[in-house]
Amino acid sequence: MREDILKSIITENDEKIVLVIADGLGGLPDSATGRTELETARTPVLDSLARNGGAAGLSVAIGYGITPGSGPSHLALFGYDPVENLIGRGVLEASGIDFPLEPEDLAVRGNFATLRDGLITDRRAGRIPTEENQRIVERLGRELKEIEGVQVILRTVKEHRFVVVFRGPGLEAGLTENDPEREGQAPLEIKPLHPAAARSARIAGLFVDRVVELLASEKSANYPLLRGFARKPALPSFRDRYRLKSAAIATYPMYRGLARLVGMDVLATGDTLASEAETLKKHYRDYDFFYLHVKKTDSYGEDGNFAAKVRVIEELDALVGEILGMKPAVLAVTADHSTPARLAGHSWHPNPFLLASEWALPDQLAAFSERECRRGSFGVFPATEIMPLLLAHSRRLKKFGA
Amino acid sequence: MREDILKSIITENDEKIVLVIADGLGGLPDSATGRTELETARTPVLDSLARNGGAAGLSVAIGYGITPGSGPSHLALFGYDPVENLIGRGVLEASGIDFPLEPEDLAVRGNFATLRDGLITDRRAGRIPTEENQRIVERLGRELKEIEGVQVILRTVKEHRFVVVFRGPGLEAGLTENDPEREGQAPLEIKPLHPAAARSARIAGLFVDRVVELLASEKSANYPLLRGFARKPALPSFRDRYRLKSAAIATYPMYRGLARLVGMDVLATGDTLASEAETLKKHYRDYDFFYLHVKKTDSYGEDGNFAAKVRVIEELDALVGEILGMKPAVLAVTADHSTPARLAGHSWHPNPFLLASEWALPDQLAAFSERECRRGSFGVFPATEIMPLLLAHSRRLKKFGA
Repeated sequence: MREDILKSIITENDEKIVLVIADGLGGLPDSATGRTELETARTPVLDSLARNGGAAGLSVAIGYGITPGSGPSHLALFGYDPVENLIGRGVLEASGIDFPLEPEDLAVRGNFATLRDGLITDRRAGRIPTEENQRIVERLGRELKEIEGVQVILRTVKEHRFVVVFRGPGLEAGLTENDPEREGQAPLEIKPLHPAAARSARIAGLFVDRVVELLASEKSANYPLLRGFARKPALPSFRDRYRLKSAAIATYPMYRGLARLVGMDVLATGDTLASEAETLKKHYRDYDFFYLHVKKTDSYGEDGNFAAKVRVIEELDALVGEILGMKPAVLAVTADHSTPARLAGHSWHPNPFLLASEWALPDQLAAFSERECRRGSFGVFPATEIMPLLLAHSRRLKKFGA
Repeated sequence: MREDILKSIITENDEKIVLVIADGLGGLPDSATGRTELETARTPVLDSLARNGGAAGLSVAIGYGITPGSGPSHLALFGYDPVENLIGRGVLEASGIDFPLEPEDLAVRGNFATLRDGLITDRRAGRIPTEENQRIVERLGRELKEIEGVQVILRTVKEHRFVVVFRGPGLEAGLTENDPEREGQAPLEIKPLHPAAARSARIAGLFVDRVVELLASEKSANYPLLRGFARKPALPSFRDRYRLKSAAIATYPMYRGLARLVGMDVLATGDTLASEAETLKKHYRDYDFFYLHVKKTDSYGEDGNFAAKVRVIEELDALVGEILGMKPAVLAVTADHSTPARLAGHSWHPNPFLLASEWALPDQLAAFSERECRRGSFGVFPATEIMPLLLAHSRRLKKFGA
C-alpha cells in the first residue's frame, strides 16, 4: 500500500470493520495426523465463511523466511512499514502498562534478577509475585528519583518484570544490554553503540549500581537486568492515516501498547474471549474500526501444546460467530505470525487470511486453513495490503485516477 | 528480502542446504500431448516430494514478462539484486576460465571470426578447434603485450571463443561492440558510450587493428569480434552476506564464474550429473551450502529438442533422489529461467520451485510441474526471496523485532 495513493482516495462512512488477529494462528502438521492446529480444530463458522462469501489469502508480515516479532508484524497488519518503524521493546512494555511516554523518554524493559557472588543465578528472581515487585518498585521510587538531572520513573509490569523510563533531554537508545541471557554468567556492562549514547550508557550504569545498593538486603530480587532501550517512533495515527475512529480489544499489555502507538482507543476488557466479545458489543456503536487480539493461540503454540492451541482456535471460531451476529460490513481474521506447536515458537510461515464482506468475491474454499487459504484470490501477499483491503470492502476508497 | 534485516538476524549452524538449479527447466506444452517437458518426464522422486513434505511456488527472477539471461537470474537466485548488480558478459567469460580478474580490469568476450573483402563471412571462423585457438592466442600473446601502456592479456576459452583483459587504470566498460551480429556485414567500429570511455574505445580499436595485422596469414581466424566489455561488480560474498561456507558444482564455465563472483568455492567435477552427485558426496562435510547446476535442461531446450530435455529431467529426478539420500536439512530445486523447447530459447515464464525440509508446510501437490507449483504456498514470488527461505528452513534466522 502506498500512503500517498490512499490519502488521495480515502473517505469516511459508518460501516464497521472488525479485524481479528489470532496471534500465532498458523502451524505445522502434527506428525501423526498430517493436520495443522487450524486443520485439526472444529471451526464450523470459519469454514462456512471460507466456503460461502469469504475471500482469502496468505499474508506475509516482513518477508519470505522472516520470523517476525509481534511488534513489527502488528505494525505491518496496521499498514505501517514494519522495518522503517521499528519499535523497541522498552517502548512496547511501557505502552502496555498505559504509561504515557513523552517523545524524548528513554524506555527500558527490566527484569528483577538474582545475583549471587557476581553471577546471575536466576534471571527472573524466581518469578516473584507481582505484589513483591510493587513493594520493591515503591521503595526504589522513594529513594531513586533522578540521576545526573535525568528523572527516573519505575513501574511494575508483572511478576519480575518492570519498566524504567529515563526522562530528560538528549537521551539515546543505542545501548548494549546488561542481561547475559544465560544463568550462571556475570551481568554485562551497558555500553554506548555510538558516541552520542555515552551519557545514556553512564546513566543506565549508575541506575544499575544504585538499585544494587538499595536492594542489597533483598533475598532474590537484587539485580536489575535492562533490555530493549528504546524511544517512541513517531507514527501517524489511524485517525490521520485512515480517517477511522478505532479501538483495540486486547488482554495483553504489549498489544494494547501497540494499538496506542497508532492512536487507537484501548478498551477495558477481561481475560477471556467471551469478555472481549462483550467489550466489542458494548462499544460497537462508538467506533468504525475494531482490532481484536486473541493471545492464547500464540501462548499454547509457544508452549508446544498442540491440543490446547486447537481448543483456543475452536473458541476463536465461536467468537467469530458472535462477531458475525453484530453484522460488521467487513470482518477479517488473520494472524501476526505463525507459532507452530511443533516449533514451540514464532515461525516464518505465512498467515491464513480470511475476509468476509458483501463485496468480497467469494473464494469458495473447502475450509479455513493454511493450505486452503493459499488458493484464495489474494494470493500470498504483504500484510501491509490488509488495511487497504478492509477500507475498500467497507466502501471507503474512491477511484484512483480518472 | 532486505539485506539490513537479514544481517541482524542471521546465525550459523551445521545444517546442510543444497540448491539445485536446473537451467531452463520450465517449458511449454507439446502441441500433441498438452504437457510440458516437466509434465512429460517421469519424475517419481520430485513428484513424491511435491506430494509429501515439499512446499512449492513459482519464482520470478527479474519481473513478469522479463526473459532473463543466466547472469541476472543466477544473481537473483543467490539473493542479489539482479538489476543493481549487472554482470557483463566479459566478466562472466573471464571468471568461467578461472581468470583472476582485478577490480580495474576491463574484460571482453571475443570470437575469432573470418573476414573476407571487408565483410564478416563466418562469425565463428568455422568453430576452429580449441587447439587452433590456443596456437593463435599464444602467438598473439607473444607479439601483443600492451597498447598505450595498458596491459593486454589474452586467453583461450573454447573453439573460436577467447577472452581479452585490458589491465590498467581508468578503463571504462561503456563501449559499443564490433560484432555486426549477422554474417555478410562489415564489422562495426567500437565507440565510447560516454566521454570517459573514449580512451578505452581507442585501445580496443587499436587491439582489433593489431590482431588483424598479426593474423593476416590465417585462413579462417583472422578477425576478433569483441563483445560484452565489462568490469567486475563488487558483490558481498556468500560468507559475508549469509555466513555460509558455500561451494558450487557446475560443469559449464559461466556458472562456475558466477559462483566465484559471490565467493563460492568452485569444486572440480566431471561432465555428467552422476559426477556432479559424486562431487557433492565427496565434499558434503566441508560446506554448509551447495549450489548444484544442471546445464543440459537448458541446452536441449535451446536446441528445441523436447524429447532430449525430457530425458535430462528424468536424470535430474534421479540426481535429486541421490541428494535426498545425503539428508540435507533443506533441498530446493528450481531454475534460473524457463527454456521451452517450443521456443528454442530462454523465456519469461516463472520457474517451478520446490523446497523440501522438515520445517516446510507440505503443500501436498499432485506432482512437481509448472502448473502444480503455482498452487504452492510460496505463491508467485521473487527469486531473491529464495535465499531467506533456505536460511529460515535450515533454522539460521532469528526472530526479527520483539
